[in-house]
Amino acid sequence: MTSRLTVVYGVRASASEIKARAQAIAVEQSVEMPLSAIHDGSILSDIVGQVRAIDDRGNGAFDVTIDLAAATIGSDAGQLINMLFGNTSLHDDVVLSSAILPSEMLSAFGGPSHGLSGLRERVGAKGRAMTCSALKPQGLGAEDLGKLAFELTMGGLDFIKDDHGLADQSYSPFVDRVRVCAAAVRKASERTGHPTRYAPSLSGSYTDMERQLGLAREEGLDVALIAPMLAGPSNFSALRRNHPDFAFLAHPTMTGARVSPVLFAQLFRLFGADASIFPNYGGRFGYSLLTCKAIAAGLLGSFGGLAASVPAPAGGMSLDRTPELLDCYGEDVMLLIGGGLLSAPRERLAAEAGRFVRAVADHCYPRLSTP
Amino acid sequence: MTSRLTVVYGVRASASEIKARAQAIAVEQSVEMPLSAIHDGSILSDIVGQVRAIDDRGNGAFDVTIDLAAATIGSDAGQLINMLFGNTSLHDDVVLSSAILPSEMLSAFGGPSHGLSGLRERVGAKGRAMTCSALKPQGLGAEDLGKLAFELTMGGLDFIKDDHGLADQSYSPFVDRVRVCAAAVRKASERTGHPTRYAPSLSGSYTDMERQLGLAREEGLDVALIAPMLAGPSNFSALRRNHPDFAFLAHPTMTGARVSPVLFAQLFRLFGADASIFPNYGGRFGYSLLTCKAIAAGLLGSFGGLAASVPAPAGGMSLDRTPELLDCYGEDVMLLIGGGLLSAPRERLAAEAGRFVRAVADHCYPRLSTP
Repeated sequence: MTSRLTVVYGVRASASEIKARAQAIAVEQSVEMPLSAIHDGSILSDIVGQVRAIDDRGNGAFDVTIDLAAATIGSDAGQLINMLFGNTSLHDDVVLSSAILPSEMLSAFGGPSHGLSGLRERVGAKGRAMTCSALKPQGLGAEDLGKLAFELTMGGLDFIKDDHGLADQSYSPFVDRVRVCAAAVRKASERTGHPTRYAPSLSGSYTDMERQLGLAREEGLDVALIAPMLAGPSNFSALRRNHPDFAFLAHPTMTGARVSPVLFAQLFRLFGADASIFPNYGGRFGYSLLTCKAIAAGLLGSFGGLAASVPAPAGGMSLDRTPELLDCYGEDVMLLIGGGLLSAPRERLAAEAGRFVRAVADHCYPRLSTP
Repeated sequence: MTSRLTVVYGVRASASEIKARAQAIAVEQSVEMPLSAIHDGSILSDIVGQVRAIDDRGNGAFDVTIDLAAATIGSDAGQLINMLFGNTSLHDDVVLSSAILPSEMLSAFGGPSHGLSGLRERVGAKGRAMTCSALKPQGLGAEDLGKLAFELTMGGLDFIKDDHGLADQSYSPFVDRVRVCAAAVRKASERTGHPTRYAPSLSGSYTDMERQLGLAREEGLDVALIAPMLAGPSNFSALRRNHPDFAFLAHPTMTGARVSPVLFAQLFRLFGADASIFPNYGGRFGYSLLTCKAIAAGLLGSFGGLAASVPAPAGGMSLDRTPELLDCYGEDVMLLIGGGLLSAPRERLAAEAGRFVRAVADHCYPRLSTP
């Protein structure tokens, strides 16, 4: 018996077609050729994807459960994505709903180097949620971004990250930005006494990203933002392995709408995301409360002994939602408010950030009553 | 006036919502924060995405044309994808339909190093289409893949590529596979006198891919298969720049169904794909004839002076469709038949490949009559 992944696909099809469609997906995501042309019995039994179940969800929607061989993947992140969804992503009537991975695979990838407890430690956040904001808009120069970073740090935030759109643009080259913003955060941190962390956004090729991590390290930084689906999942995984001193916040850009965001968050955790950003319910993306709770559970819950990854809901959030969000997510969360803080006039920015910090610090988490 | 990209999104919305949706996409794909919080006039005028047109296509479908600032992208491939579709890819009611890029951007990326004419030269294919097949299934060891490569080369094919699912698996490690298959192709090539090229599939991190290219180079190879959306577009771009002796066949795995395949093929050409594989019409993917013709035109047509990239239709194709496909695509094409050839018994494989080669060589292309 070879080790297998159990993968569920949501498929739109007619009842008469679904069996053939399910089988076609099983073949596409494994050997990708007619089974009649395969004469090696062990490939047919051990490598070809196997349809395990087809559940009719009504109205032409089916859940198709397929077992894929772990041997086709090994421990390469890009190849895992390739075998889970690669060619099938081209079909507009199939979504990738969920996957159960064998435990050897979980330990082979290794998960976060620091995770929830490591990030808490970096910013001294015990028994409370963590706070985060973003540097933007796109188009500001390094000096202006640095001023924002200074004010946000003066407010006592835990993390300040680059907007995921900040790359290595001529109006704000990475090297200038990281120096100015790191210095601003350092300076303000000395005044507040709070160890605010600045997380610059990595972009470009793997080589570019290693150079950027080097620059960040020179500035005393130890957290970075990365978009695994732009970097290439294997490159993210390699960065995590080769730079264990850094914690990584994963950004969901280009994850698309046809892979379950719960699964994507789990995959990012698997590849090494210490925190995983996702669009919060009630913001400008259409995620439901249920989806967001499931994402948080997928990042925090038991996962083959891997460290927990911090859920970081974001996207169109405002300060006055802090109590509601903390009631919803509990204390194991990093609330990310970007535009909602930056909408304040510059001279009020530190005070607004401070209000956010206090709202989080003062929150009384609902607990189960004990007798 | 700053340099801009003109991007068209297909959006599903009600007539009353579409204006706000269009504006939201323009903001999301540029500054990603409330415009009321931006006080810098030059960011509002030069950086924020601008909605240029909203065309009602009926039944709740709209084409939204948005201009994005080229300055937010520079010449980084990952950042181009990020600004074209990044966060908006998370919305399931938006597709990325097309993009017109400024000419400076086209020259900055540079396109294919070899392209159509370079690939033709490598295999001595003048005035005819090129032929390609794939090594599979997943699960075969290096020795067995080498035997297939030998037989396919004996048939006189131009290109033999690894299946895009072949990575660095324990049953067929890259280093073994590339040595055995390169040797098999070399040996058979000496017999046929035809310079068949073997293109191994690159996988893993950028560092892994560079090592793989090094191994391939040691074996005298000069063509490789890459999946840009798994590698990370910036890494593909960097490999192309740093390894100009190699030609790259691009594979569409993980390009998803919500970016126009025509645009994706053009982006792959932009980043440096010498040939671009796409699912052929009438195969096992749902692409129409019209879509496939548009992909081919996007790869071959005028594009800021960039070399043409070879259209390589594939996916569930059979030998007997060769005349139809050549009538459709003309001679500037690489026909890729994988499973359709491999379905032949091993002892007939070289003969089947030979039939494919002859069908392509003997084809009489329809030409416009001249007086």
